[in-house]
Amino acid sequence: MTLSVPAGFRVSGVHCGIKRYPNKEDLTLVIADGPAVAAGVYTQNLVCAAPVIVDRARTPSDAIRAVVVNSGNANACTGEQGMRDAEEMTRLAAEVCDANPEQALVMSTGIIGHHLPMEKVAAGIASAAGQLGDSSEHWQAAARGILTTDNGVKMAGKNVRLGEREVTIAGIAKGAGMIGPNMATFLGLVLTDASLTVDAAQQLVTEAADQSFNCISVEGHTSTNDTMLLLASGAAGGPALSGDELATFEQALIEVCIELARTMPDDGEGATHLIVIDVTGCSDRAGAKQIAQTIADSALVKTAVTGADPNWGRIVSAAGYAGVTFDPRGVSLKVNGFQLYESGAPVPFDAAEVSASIKGNRDTHVELFFQEGTAGVRFWSTDLTAEYVRLNADYTT
Amino acid sequence: MTLSVPAGFRVSGVHCGIKRYPNKEDLTLVIADGPAVAAGVYTQNLVCAAPVIVDRARTPSDAIRAVVVNSGNANACTGEQGMRDAEEMTRLAAEVCDANPEQALVMSTGIIGHHLPMEKVAAGIASAAGQLGDSSEHWQAAARGILTTDNGVKMAGKNVRLGEREVTIAGIAKGAGMIGPNMATFLGLVLTDASLTVDAAQQLVTEAADQSFNCISVEGHTSTNDTMLLLASGAAGGPALSGDELATFEQALIEVCIELARTMPDDGEGATHLIVIDVTGCSDRAGAKQIAQTIADSALVKTAVTGADPNWGRIVSAAGYAGVTFDPRGVSLKVNGFQLYESGAPVPFDAAEVSASIKGNRDTHVELFFQEGTAGVRFWSTDLTAEYVRLNADYTT
Repeated sequence: MTLSVPAGFRVSGVHCGIKRYPNKEDLTLVIADGPAVAAGVYTQNLVCAAPVIVDRARTPSDAIRAVVVNSGNANACTGEQGMRDAEEMTRLAAEVCDANPEQALVMSTGIIGHHLPMEKVAAGIASAAGQLGDSSEHWQAAARGILTTDNGVKMAGKNVRLGEREVTIAGIAKGAGMIGPNMATFLGLVLTDASLTVDAAQQLVTEAADQSFNCISVEGHTSTNDTMLLLASGAAGGPALSGDELATFEQALIEVCIELARTMPDDGEGATHLIVIDVTGCSDRAGAKQIAQTIADSALVKTAVTGADPNWGRIVSAAGYAGVTFDPRGVSLKVNGFQLYESGAPVPFDAAEVSASIKGNRDTHVELFFQEGTAGVRFWSTDLTAEYVRLNADYTT
Repeated sequence: MTLSVPAGFRVSGVHCGIKRYPNKEDLTLVIADGPAVAAGVYTQNLVCAAPVIVDRARTPSDAIRAVVVNSGNANACTGEQGMRDAEEMTRLAAEVCDANPEQALVMSTGIIGHHLPMEKVAAGIASAAGQLGDSSEHWQAAARGILTTDNGVKMAGKNVRLGEREVTIAGIAKGAGMIGPNMATFLGLVLTDASLTVDAAQQLVTEAADQSFNCISVEGHTSTNDTMLLLASGAAGGPALSGDELATFEQALIEVCIELARTMPDDGEGATHLIVIDVTGCSDRAGAKQIAQTIADSALVKTAVTGADPNWGRIVSAAGYAGVTFDPRGVSLKVNGFQLYESGAPVPFDAAEVSASIKGNRDTHVELFFQEGTAGVRFWSTDLTAEYVRLNADYTT
């Protein structure tokens, strides 16, 4: 895993005072040396924040020069002032590299319903502009600048050999559940020095998000700010990727995004287990995903894992109410490799042994098999603990 | 509220040993003196229990004579033996009143994946047959016979004047969340001495369930056994209800079902608040319901109520990802009568005052207003506490 900044970008992360804690980075700036290809995927929530509205209108693009991200304040539910503030952030970020405001993108995360402290933000962008660089330290500061309640930085990267060339993919992310003060969000920012067409970039980011960030659940709550951006500088040289090279790049990008995505439920508030759910044998991927997500969101499945209980009934019945048609007689289930249910009926198993396996491992592997077709999906969730409730019920007091 | 048994029925509740605790009723028998009209609504879960399959095939009907219910074992995921056991239960219940097996219905609730102890069940039906009666005590024993982890009996009833006649509606229910040993369910059984056509009965039970049992959520998990039955003996006399009388009856039936339904989240595992969610101003009821249910199921909304936190952001954003189209600028929100959000933006409010109101009341009233149309829905949910997690994670240990 490389943690360096792909060629063609410089980054920084600074503290400008949006977060109350001193020394905690709360502003990240990314500058592309030249016009970069950029594409994004955004929250489906109808109540979406100003930065999402701005970026959605500006992507995909082949001329992005800057991305500015702040944490501590989501600039959501902030009306027209919020829109003006988001646009002002892009203007200030673009100014750093003498670009037009429309060549910059913006992301925000943190409390909602409060206007941004724009003086601090402006000072922060100025300060960040003075600290740009491409070292591992710069990248880590940038990763810290987008965090809210995360326990630590979320970074992933890969070098990919494509014939004669080697390209780099490096991503940072944030998100650990929707704790507050008011609510949080997930953000992902992936940079690459590969050369991509605008169309390819949009397809790549959509596909990668679909297999990673859209396959995780901490508590099933979609935030107002969820955003994933992909920026490609082309600094690795050569023509835009196509054919086999594009396919190889896509696979690597998906792997990076999955690595970033699974850190989120793993870092879920109060989580003691990461639940990895494989649903296979479905007639289509959408159905498989709906089943996996229903299991991932079930409080009963989550608490069963918390309690190290090999409760096949909760898993199978969650599948049953997912709203996807299947033959119940074709359902089989394994947990941590142990067969609990086969062809529509429970099978004898050593409950103590399975329970010990759940208790002894951070990951709980749920495999649900259908006999409808060949489609499948992998989904990640977290268990539900009393600590989660404490964090989300009591954080204001 | 009447708690007596409507004319034309006799009931009993006995202990036959399915539950481990002595003296806890685990079998309820209802006998109609003559052929009764019966209709039901059943779980939408594809993984459904044998009793659901049996009843679904036998209703609606104008010739039902008996209903037998057991608690402690759900007869779910029990294969062909389970089907034979469910049918045998109806045969034994029908025998009590010299009816055909097809004239009896059956409901089961309790652990899943285990075969019924049929010797105990048979002895229980014989014992219940010897203790039939129509007193308040009989009705209460019947109400106890269907419980699992409920904190107490769930009963509701109403006398309804229809011109010269008075008819009685009396219902019992069970359900408090899907605690175990493996999982639980909700059952509702409503008896009336009114005279109904089969078609009217089916329409009534569908409508009443839609406005009551289908508008509650403890943790959003639909069980394999959920069933609501309506039986009408016609013993109050007169022709089958129609026109205004039928409408009056329907209203009373809905009220009884709502009273039964709201006891479930109120009795939810570990619950400290009943959350009453009114969604209004939607373009259709289905959309209103989807929004209400998404709020009802949100772990973040639930934990906010647990913590007495007037967190408008969690409520509004849950509406936003419900999958229903609306104009976010038309959204307003009140909690316990306090305006928190108006026309798409938060408004200033005294957070301490609202928090004190949440803390000081068992019910939390969430009112969400849209400007799309005139449709609305009322939904009931429960908060999410560390005690819920403890109950559902640790019950096996």
